[in-house]
Amino acid sequence: MLLSENISSEYIKTLDLEQKKELCAEIRKFLIDSVSQTGGHLASNLGTVELTVALHSVFTTPADKIVFDVGHQSYTHKMITGRYGKFGTLRSKGGISGFPRQSESEHDAFIGGHSSISVSAALGIAKAMELEGKEGNVIAVIGDGALTGGQAYEGLNNVTKLSNNLIVVLNDNEMSISRSKGMVAKHLTKMRSSRSYFEKKAAVKEFLSHSEIGKDISRSLSGTKDLIKFAIYQSNIFESLGLKYYGPVNGHDLAKLIEVLEVAKLTDAPCIVHVKTKKGKGYRPAELNSGEYHGVARTDRVSVRSGTFSEAAGLEVMRLGESNRRVCAVTAAMKYATGLEHFAKAFPERFFDVGIAEQHALTFSCGLASQGLIPVFAVYSTFLQRCFDQLIHDASIEKKHLVLLIDRAGFVGEDGETHQGLYDVPMLSMIPNTEIYSPFDETTLKACIQRAVNETDGIAAVRYPRGCCPEGVDEEYRDFYYNGGGSDTLTITYGRISHEMVDIDGADSLILLKIFPIPEEAARIAAGYKRVIFFEEGMRHGGIAEKLLPMLNANGFRGKYEIAAVTGAVGAADTETQLKDAGLDRGGMTERVKRAL
Amino acid sequence: MLLSENISSEYIKTLDLEQKKELCAEIRKFLIDSVSQTGGHLASNLGTVELTVALHSVFTTPADKIVFDVGHQSYTHKMITGRYGKFGTLRSKGGISGFPRQSESEHDAFIGGHSSISVSAALGIAKAMELEGKEGNVIAVIGDGALTGGQAYEGLNNVTKLSNNLIVVLNDNEMSISRSKGMVAKHLTKMRSSRSYFEKKAAVKEFLSHSEIGKDISRSLSGTKDLIKFAIYQSNIFESLGLKYYGPVNGHDLAKLIEVLEVAKLTDAPCIVHVKTKKGKGYRPAELNSGEYHGVARTDRVSVRSGTFSEAAGLEVMRLGESNRRVCAVTAAMKYATGLEHFAKAFPERFFDVGIAEQHALTFSCGLASQGLIPVFAVYSTFLQRCFDQLIHDASIEKKHLVLLIDRAGFVGEDGETHQGLYDVPMLSMIPNTEIYSPFDETTLKACIQRAVNETDGIAAVRYPRGCCPEGVDEEYRDFYYNGGGSDTLTITYGRISHEMVDIDGADSLILLKIFPIPEEAARIAAGYKRVIFFEEGMRHGGIAEKLLPMLNANGFRGKYEIAAVTGAVGAADTETQLKDAGLDRGGMTERVKRAL
Repeated sequence: MLLSENISSEYIKTLDLEQKKELCAEIRKFLIDSVSQTGGHLASNLGTVELTVALHSVFTTPADKIVFDVGHQSYTHKMITGRYGKFGTLRSKGGISGFPRQSESEHDAFIGGHSSISVSAALGIAKAMELEGKEGNVIAVIGDGALTGGQAYEGLNNVTKLSNNLIVVLNDNEMSISRSKGMVAKHLTKMRSSRSYFEKKAAVKEFLSHSEIGKDISRSLSGTKDLIKFAIYQSNIFESLGLKYYGPVNGHDLAKLIEVLEVAKLTDAPCIVHVKTKKGKGYRPAELNSGEYHGVARTDRVSVRSGTFSEAAGLEVMRLGESNRRVCAVTAAMKYATGLEHFAKAFPERFFDVGIAEQHALTFSCGLASQGLIPVFAVYSTFLQRCFDQLIHDASIEKKHLVLLIDRAGFVGEDGETHQGLYDVPMLSMIPNTEIYSPFDETTLKACIQRAVNETDGIAAVRYPRGCCPEGVDEEYRDFYYNGGGSDTLTITYGRISHEMVDIDGADSLILLKIFPIPEEAARIAAGYKRVIFFEEGMRHGGIAEKLLPMLNANGFRGKYEIAAVTGAVGAADTETQLKDAGLDRGGMTERVKRAL
Repeated sequence: MLLSENISSEYIKTLDLEQKKELCAEIRKFLIDSVSQTGGHLASNLGTVELTVALHSVFTTPADKIVFDVGHQSYTHKMITGRYGKFGTLRSKGGISGFPRQSESEHDAFIGGHSSISVSAALGIAKAMELEGKEGNVIAVIGDGALTGGQAYEGLNNVTKLSNNLIVVLNDNEMSISRSKGMVAKHLTKMRSSRSYFEKKAAVKEFLSHSEIGKDISRSLSGTKDLIKFAIYQSNIFESLGLKYYGPVNGHDLAKLIEVLEVAKLTDAPCIVHVKTKKGKGYRPAELNSGEYHGVARTDRVSVRSGTFSEAAGLEVMRLGESNRRVCAVTAAMKYATGLEHFAKAFPERFFDVGIAEQHALTFSCGLASQGLIPVFAVYSTFLQRCFDQLIHDASIEKKHLVLLIDRAGFVGEDGETHQGLYDVPMLSMIPNTEIYSPFDETTLKACIQRAVNETDGIAAVRYPRGCCPEGVDEEYRDFYYNGGGSDTLTITYGRISHEMVDIDGADSLILLKIFPIPEEAARIAAGYKRVIFFEEGMRHGGIAEKLLPMLNANGFRGKYEIAAVTGAVGAADTETQLKDAGLDRGGMTERVKRAL
């Protein structure tokens, strides 16, 4: 057994090729045995076992820096760098993160939850090392999916020659590609099917030394070198961007991976190594259906779970699309996870998957709206953060009618800090011409989506949590639900925790369905109480609770006001624990009311 | 005189080439005479006179849609589409906007204040037209500067074949290029100096029909067509992205422009037309120094105006860079406007201009910070909106120490809705590990920057307005300034309007310098008043005023609370008018206090 808590970059360098292959097999077996139990991103991580061992064969962390773009590929790296013994705690409270974290280990060069940032971060690190006179290479490992995000291009566009080398490793797995429809994906497909770096090296040599026509060309044409270079090495987008290109290389051929990384290391210029990997490699069920074993990753291909808010939302959009052919649906690489697959199947011509490109998704939606269509953009709360500026500039100022279905709003569980859906309410409620709805069951979800599509103008956002959607009682839409029982204390909330708050002893309750603008009538009712407690599953600052108090004050309220909300980053745990730790579970809320009385 | 209020796409099509040239000359003269008076973006607009006339020679608005990426190029278009007579009102209150606005004219296909969105918007418009069965071409006109923004790439990556054609016109002016250091800029420079579309067309014909070597190649090599295509048409990044490429074309040769646009119109695939223009064309002072005549555009090359907040901030950063070699400065194409030129000159190795790429700028800065350097990112408030997600994900979660110098915070004047600096406070104050300072004169500006660089951790933002910076009195830094005179009414504010609020009759005053987290002591003082009025030059929702009231309540305040802040989009006008209209000038604030008493 080679795999142990004591392996490291240094240790791997002492192994011969066969031992390294053995280590890869052990790691793969461990991933399958361990991760299938803790529920991480199995398929993605199985795809990068050889690549990671090759990286640690050639480079040494923490002196060399490896930046993983989206950490679904980083488990082997974590094992090699001292965290093998902690995999039982993966993605659980107090345990190791599912993503790289500089605060977790000096071997993790940068945080890696959101997509497409690795080249930017790697450049910053490399520049800093150069300025500080530190030796070491910086390697950004970026997936083909992350390459559809505009920031990846901003990063690539800023790559310059550095004293220490910058190496971009493109982890190109065919699974993501098949779904990705962008031009770059097509381009990569073409590159992938071309002759490999190693074949080409041999071919050029052969060509230049023996071919008669080669000599003819040399004699007769100017610019021949470029001609040959174009023909043989094939021009590609990365060379256009000025990076030296090596590839494609089989990402499961350890010897070739090590060789090409050695070449890249010796290259005196920024370069890109194009590696073909296979998601779920070595585990047959995962290979056959990589999506199912991908965990909660955004490239999930599995149909949405039945009984969830996501599914109910997706079905409702499809239904609205049936009765109104102006309804379009937009996603940024989340067709399945957001439940839009139903709409996509029914109305393929009105469905748009733009890849991991939320900024584009938003502006594209506004383009649709500018012609009178009704775009419905379904997006995780955490990823909506990417198009904040577009919401203000492209949507709000000219009051485009845009429907946002904000999935995974509130605590998201095991993905932790990087993926919490806690910012959408403060973010949206500062933007003029915006309405926000927070349904808590299937009935209210449908009612809110209908309103957003058919009865609003401007930005209409419907936000709902990850997970199970209670059925609800069929009744007419109401802006809020007030349950007055003669107490002088009122509890207020919205969204999923409404179910837990509604009948706490000693307090009346008010549940907002339309959370912004806050219904005036709700504020008038609340202003009549001596004591108001607002529970909010979201960031305190900029949230609804902060907005309500000035309205109460204007309505003559002079009582005591309390806010229970989130004030800092919230780490991985199951959602129930996250709610409990924030005092937003039934016990916590009951306790708070008791203390107040 | 051909130029009149009655010209249009249709009218231009009735002119012969000589008349069109005459019209261009008249437009150019008008631009020089009129815009130099109203203060628009002269140089950029002088560069696109022929291009715009050519566009209207080939296409017809509003049936065809022209999306200008950043409206600095759209004045000729506005003249041609019914707004010639309104140029006296350009960028003034109630007048025509300096940017395209769909709400201003059906000839403006999409809003165009912020950069790099045109391809996304054009795609949405084109898709909508296709779905609705509307005829017409969609043209995105994008500058080479805007091409450094990642969203442009997200858009290009999503270009697909449409029933109506999508044409991207790349307005490549050498002035922007010279400053732009990205790989794409280098690539464009190479492309620009290559043989033009027209020369190449002739050359290929010649080559294929007469060259002996051509036949040899045909016989001996497979893939010859590609070979020739690569050699002659030259591979470039746009072809990598799947767009047909035409160019480069002289952007001031009307006949050639019309011809190439006709070719593009007939092309049955998305295509890009690469047009070389010259900023300030036809006006000698502007040609010589296009920056000076560029107005307030972000590509401003003119040194920062002396006596401004920007200049004082830039000088202070340079000073701090002298005493601490870990201080780095980062800008997204705003070296001059933000006053960073001084730092850039003194410490070129620690200065980074990343182009119009705020997302990259932020993550790159965090990369620097991850190695212990102190990045200072100077950015306009409105453009900081572009990196909201990166602030949360890359900076806040792992508490990177990052200094933000937020320029143009508050009202910005004539640029209007798209450029107001009203969102930075709500945006930043919801993010954990963030401090925000709002200096109001040179003394406090310097003190705040020093604190942000040397005495804080996490994100430290210093925000200040456009324009003149009063000198201030030299004294020690204080979190807030309280002026208690025994009144039962307290006025509170921060930033530039502090000067106007400080001694309003009948009220005590409290001025925050550290605005977030709000100093506890300030809240305690305010809680003792019967009546508190908060004046805020920023969005009401999520602002400091909303945050203060729960703190007052917790401190026992049961009085009346009023907020005077911004609640909607604020259009073009001079800053004084904008402050007055919002009730935030001295008169408005005095009036408000009177009413309250």
